[in-house]
Amino acid sequence: MNRILPVALVQHRDRGSREANLAHIAEQVAGAADAGARLVLLQELHNGPYFCQQEDPALCDLAEPIPGPSTEFLGQLAAEHHLVIVGSLFERRAAGLYHNTAVVLDADGALAGRYRKMHIPDDPGFYEKFYFTPGDLGFRPVDTTVGRLGVLVCWDQWYPEAARLMALAGAELLLYPTAIGWDRNDDGAERQRQLAAWQTIQRAHAVANGMPVLSCNRVGFEPSALASDPGIDFWGHSFVCGPQGELLAEAGTEETLLLSEIDLDRSEQVRRIWPFLRDRRIDAYEGLLERYLGE
Amino acid sequence: MNRILPVALVQHRDRGSREANLAHIAEQVAGAADAGARLVLLQELHNGPYFCQQEDPALCDLAEPIPGPSTEFLGQLAAEHHLVIVGSLFERRAAGLYHNTAVVLDADGALAGRYRKMHIPDDPGFYEKFYFTPGDLGFRPVDTTVGRLGVLVCWDQWYPEAARLMALAGAELLLYPTAIGWDRNDDGAERQRQLAAWQTIQRAHAVANGMPVLSCNRVGFEPSALASDPGIDFWGHSFVCGPQGELLAEAGTEETLLLSEIDLDRSEQVRRIWPFLRDRRIDAYEGLLERYLGE
Repeated sequence: MNRILPVALVQHRDRGSREANLAHIAEQVAGAADAGARLVLLQELHNGPYFCQQEDPALCDLAEPIPGPSTEFLGQLAAEHHLVIVGSLFERRAAGLYHNTAVVLDADGALAGRYRKMHIPDDPGFYEKFYFTPGDLGFRPVDTTVGRLGVLVCWDQWYPEAARLMALAGAELLLYPTAIGWDRNDDGAERQRQLAAWQTIQRAHAVANGMPVLSCNRVGFEPSALASDPGIDFWGHSFVCGPQGELLAEAGTEETLLLSEIDLDRSEQVRRIWPFLRDRRIDAYEGLLERYLGE
Repeated sequence: MNRILPVALVQHRDRGSREANLAHIAEQVAGAADAGARLVLLQELHNGPYFCQQEDPALCDLAEPIPGPSTEFLGQLAAEHHLVIVGSLFERRAAGLYHNTAVVLDADGALAGRYRKMHIPDDPGFYEKFYFTPGDLGFRPVDTTVGRLGVLVCWDQWYPEAARLMALAGAELLLYPTAIGWDRNDDGAERQRQLAAWQTIQRAHAVANGMPVLSCNRVGFEPSALASDPGIDFWGHSFVCGPQGELLAEAGTEETLLLSEIDLDRSEQVRRIWPFLRDRRIDAYEGLLERYLGE
């Protein structure tokens, strides 16, 4: 009898206020529970817009402590529906010390753990290095009633190192709250390459580590306050894949409650036919701790 | 003016003897040269059948020294056509000491370098640990007249660590001579998952490292000498992808001379919009040198 875990991903647009976003999330989580989900993944910074399109110190007012009002809200929701929720918050740790932090609320509503985003991007439109101190908790999975969760955040998804470290620490699945989208200045071919690359690398984490991956992205256009930036079309396409990288469910670019089921025991079989962890050349990987191996 | 490199991959079946395989390769390399290719990638252990379907000490007679007769043959071919050839040989280093070794012949015919397969598989039908001593040269790219080549071999393709180390050492593209196929006992859905996983993870190495990837696999059915094993349907599907993982050329399951062009200067632009190497958390990657982080 395999451990089948019904999961749900809440892909939505920014609905204009913290209250409106949390109300939408509450409604979607209720729907997920009705459908039998026992784990719900939310998108990155789901309480508001993706505010990192500009560097404005006043926006740090959006940050909140953890535990705090949002973990309390999500914890109540988790307990009410007896399911695990993975959320994504702007954490205020101290004056001038903020993180991009994922939180895990267990099915009894307790804060089971947190993950502070380790890899911080900084690209036109994504000025995260201004706001977010790189995480200092490392790549530690969070134990919950539905399994050991390897929670990572957005930019981490481009790093095989992060996925591998979660796998080595015993994570049973990987989860990525995400906020990624297109630059309106890019043409259709470039947009397609970017979306495919984003999906490909995350499916590859599933393959390399023989574990399911869940990735939840936002949708909708969010304008920039900067005249030099065109705003972001968040591309959605949240998905769930199994331990061979096979797609189990995939959203489009509309608001979606994406439902799927993952088989947590299938990893054992997949890793037996492809025992990658057995053959890692840990004696020859020192270079991975270097920035570069040339000059 | 970008550096455009025309490339060719020789995907073929075992033609029954070393002489027949090398004659076919010579013909295909001539065709590649006629088409303008400056770099030719051959499949894994192209001189013969994939002999690792059984553990037979007598098969070690197939091994040869490097430099040796095959590098001489391939070097003459490279020099004749003024192109770089990446081949794959069963290397005899000493009595009882053999490697699965890729060789790089530069356009003047000289042996520019070798790579000894670091990750050695051992699965039903793929009994490589009996024959091949794990490589001891590390992940060092080979400099040639067409660029710095990150040559890896087959099972290495499942390891993001190998691709990353080649990138950090300055490789400009990754090349995988390969011998992978289906087990006839697997159904169509499983075959499709395996092929997709194989392509996905290699395209992901391109994405993670912002560099092109070339992978050349064999085709044809090769029976097993063991009654317990069903033989292997080598699945071909050799391909070339660019630095965002975008497919540039892809073969099917027939013998193919696959031609494509890669733009070596595009990596610079791709890495500027997705500067993954900038943000690696080398302070937090020590765990990658461990076998496992639980007990």
